[in-house]
Amino acid sequence: MKDFNVYSHLERVRTEKPLVHHITNWVTIYDCANIVKVFGASPVMAHAKEEVADMTSLASALVLNIGTLTTDIIEAMKCAGVAANKKGIPVVLDACGAGATPFRDEKCFELLDQIKIDIVKGNTSEIARLAGEAVQTKGVDAVEVEKNLIHIAQELAFSRNCVVVITGKEDIIADNKNVLYKVNNGHEMMARIVGTGCMAASVIGTFAAVESNLALAAAVGLCCYEIAAERAAEETCAPGAFKERLFDCVYSLDKDVVEKRERIS
Amino acid sequence: MKDFNVYSHLERVRTEKPLVHHITNWVTIYDCANIVKVFGASPVMAHAKEEVADMTSLASALVLNIGTLTTDIIEAMKCAGVAANKKGIPVVLDACGAGATPFRDEKCFELLDQIKIDIVKGNTSEIARLAGEAVQTKGVDAVEVEKNLIHIAQELAFSRNCVVVITGKEDIIADNKNVLYKVNNGHEMMARIVGTGCMAASVIGTFAAVESNLALAAAVGLCCYEIAAERAAEETCAPGAFKERLFDCVYSLDKDVVEKRERIS
Amino acid sequence: MKDFNVYSHLERVRTEKPLVHHITNWVTIYDCANIVKVFGASPVMAHAKEEVADMTSLASALVLNIGTLTTDIIEAMKCAGVAANKKGIPVVLDACGAGATPFRDEKCFELLDQIKIDIVKGNTSEIARLAGEAVQTKGVDAVEVEKNLIHIAQELAFSRNCVVVITGKEDIIADNKNVLYKVNNGHEMMARIVGTGCMAASVIGTFAAVESNLALAAAVGLCCYEIAAERAAEETCAPGAFKERLFDCVYSLDKDVVEKRERIS
Repeated sequence: MKDFNVYSHLERVRTEKPLVHHITNWVTIYDCANIVKVFGASPVMAHAKEEVADMTSLASALVLNIGTLTTDIIEAMKCAGVAANKKGIPVVLDACGAGATPFRDEKCFELLDQIKIDIVKGNTSEIARLAGEAVQTKGVDAVEVEKNLIHIAQELAFSRNCVVVITGKEDIIADNKNVLYKVNNGHEMMARIVGTGCMAASVIGTFAAVESNLALAAAVGLCCYEIAAERAAEETCAPGAFKERLFDCVYSLDKDVVEKRERIS
Repeated sequence: MKDFNVYSHLERVRTEKPLVHHITNWVTIYDCANIVKVFGASPVMAHAKEEVADMTSLASALVLNIGTLTTDIIEAMKCAGVAANKKGIPVVLDACGAGATPFRDEKCFELLDQIKIDIVKGNTSEIARLAGEAVQTKGVDAVEVEKNLIHIAQELAFSRNCVVVITGKEDIIADNKNVLYKVNNGHEMMARIVGTGCMAASVIGTFAAVESNLALAAAVGLCCYEIAAERAAEETCAPGAFKERLFDCVYSLDKDVVEKRERIS
Repeated sequence: MKDFNVYSHLERVRTEKPLVHHITNWVTIYDCANIVKVFGASPVMAHAKEEVADMTSLASALVLNIGTLTTDIIEAMKCAGVAANKKGIPVVLDACGAGATPFRDEKCFELLDQIKIDIVKGNTSEIARLAGEAVQTKGVDAVEVEKNLIHIAQELAFSRNCVVVITGKEDIIADNKNVLYKVNNGHEMMARIVGTGCMAASVIGTFAAVESNLALAAAVGLCCYEIAAERAAEETCAPGAFKERLFDCVYSLDKDVVEKRERIS
């Protein structure tokens, strides 16, 4: 029998309504804020170097997403990261586009070196690149990797002392204590629209804000989010409508649905 | 009998199609533009210091929103504000997140000191902070304030010589001549999605562009916007669908609906 | 009989899935990314000067949109443009708001002078201004121009050695070899919401990524996009719902619909 209950984590998010500070990209910034909101929590986006430490100090989790990074934004991320580490709240890094340009790789490594990142999340080629593989991400879209993904995740988790999340058809969550979760929820429509990957990192941050077992937090957060996506896709596979319904289905997730559908192993 | 007609203001917006210049945040910038558009007016977003004064000079109102402020953005706001003051068009400040960090408070006060802000809009704790209360906004989400909100609004209106708008279940609009409006339209779904607060400031700016009685402009603008929200919520309380329907219901507002539903006192 | 087949170009986009690099504005950046995605291609947005050349080198087209330009963004556009020219991939410039402020005009001319722009796209007054007419764009909204639009497009195409696209009720596409296409698809709802103009430039870039006859690429791309808009408007003329359905209708475009509806002359 499982030693965790997925729905109870969703309830905690809805009850505690944690503040989740983001420094993220300009493409999906609305989506990231809104997904946190419809999960019942409280998003805030702020990136001025002068205030990020103060904003992080109010928050229960920090989500960093390098989708449209600049040097200034990375510096702000470091300030926020230091504040998060000091307060002891989880820091999630979405390595959006790692493996596409040397600048992205370099800035990811700077963040990993200079602050304590608690959870690194990316698609196959993004995480492979951070683990040292010679892969080339297609912009922000995943490219297949030949090596075993579980090994890649575990290697990076051990070398960086963090939780690693590889999203895909099956999500892989590894930590540095040989914990391993696989989440088999979700729907292929998620790959047909912009924003689902970035929102996944925001969801992980939201659940990590209320659950100190961070690998578990990532797994149950992704599971809830992807169950909502399954339900949205049952209603429509038109991408515009699916996106809208995804928010609706997150908002209306209930115990029955979550318990019947969760596929974490 | 009332000495104003809500629907006639909406008609003026639709007929005059004012250009409303925004310097706003990156989270809800699309929503702010689109709400102005579906009201029948013409939004423009521009923040380069080199052009903001020229853009403001073309416009009929200026909306400033500090949601994702930086020092550069604040400097651009000042340039635009000076141009707006010179042309005599109304300047709306959405004090988004005031009370969350010292940086936000300080920059709000700089704007209030260095340019003539005609309408300051915020939620309970944002306005309370600008009025000198020791409150702590939860990111950009309101926190309850113990003091009487009408007194707070009036105090700030007198001290800053401007119209003050506190949005909430009941919106309070005060000016420095003891005018006081309360708007009791709206729906709680507005608080469940990201963007409704920012759009409220854009709507106020749009109505202030065509009506020189600025307290009245704020009241009738909010009233129309919130009537649309009521109608959207009658169709759906799913957050994704509600957001979409909000735009639709603003677009299709008609005389009957506005006159039957307006609850301004 | 026509020497081109509109649907075959759409099929090429869906099969080749080109990477389309954007440096664009913060208002419609999500829309630009998502429209490329639902056409079956792969969008990437990146604007840091340190990486734009590398990102462009991975891509099959570059789309530049000055909607919320700053000096830094323009410098990044130049770096990306140089890389695109070197690689020989098409560069699309959406002259968003040209004719509104001197800064926009000046920066457009800098881009046209310093890099090879392959396709310039704008509304009536934007293109007229770049062609030297003394018009004043209303923010980013078109203003009527008295002179013959075809002449204006051809003049600019010859003087700048590029394809010129004027979007409107009838789209005009001219090149410097006296090729001239007119596209009469589309629906007036497109003018009632924010984002359709910016998305048009992204669509042009996406088709130009797979078709080296750039005037033809622009014409067939616009045609497909506008057929989708027609179908969306047949289902709804509510602006929020129309926007959502536009993405759905692009995604589901098929041979029959495209062939029956295309109105390119």
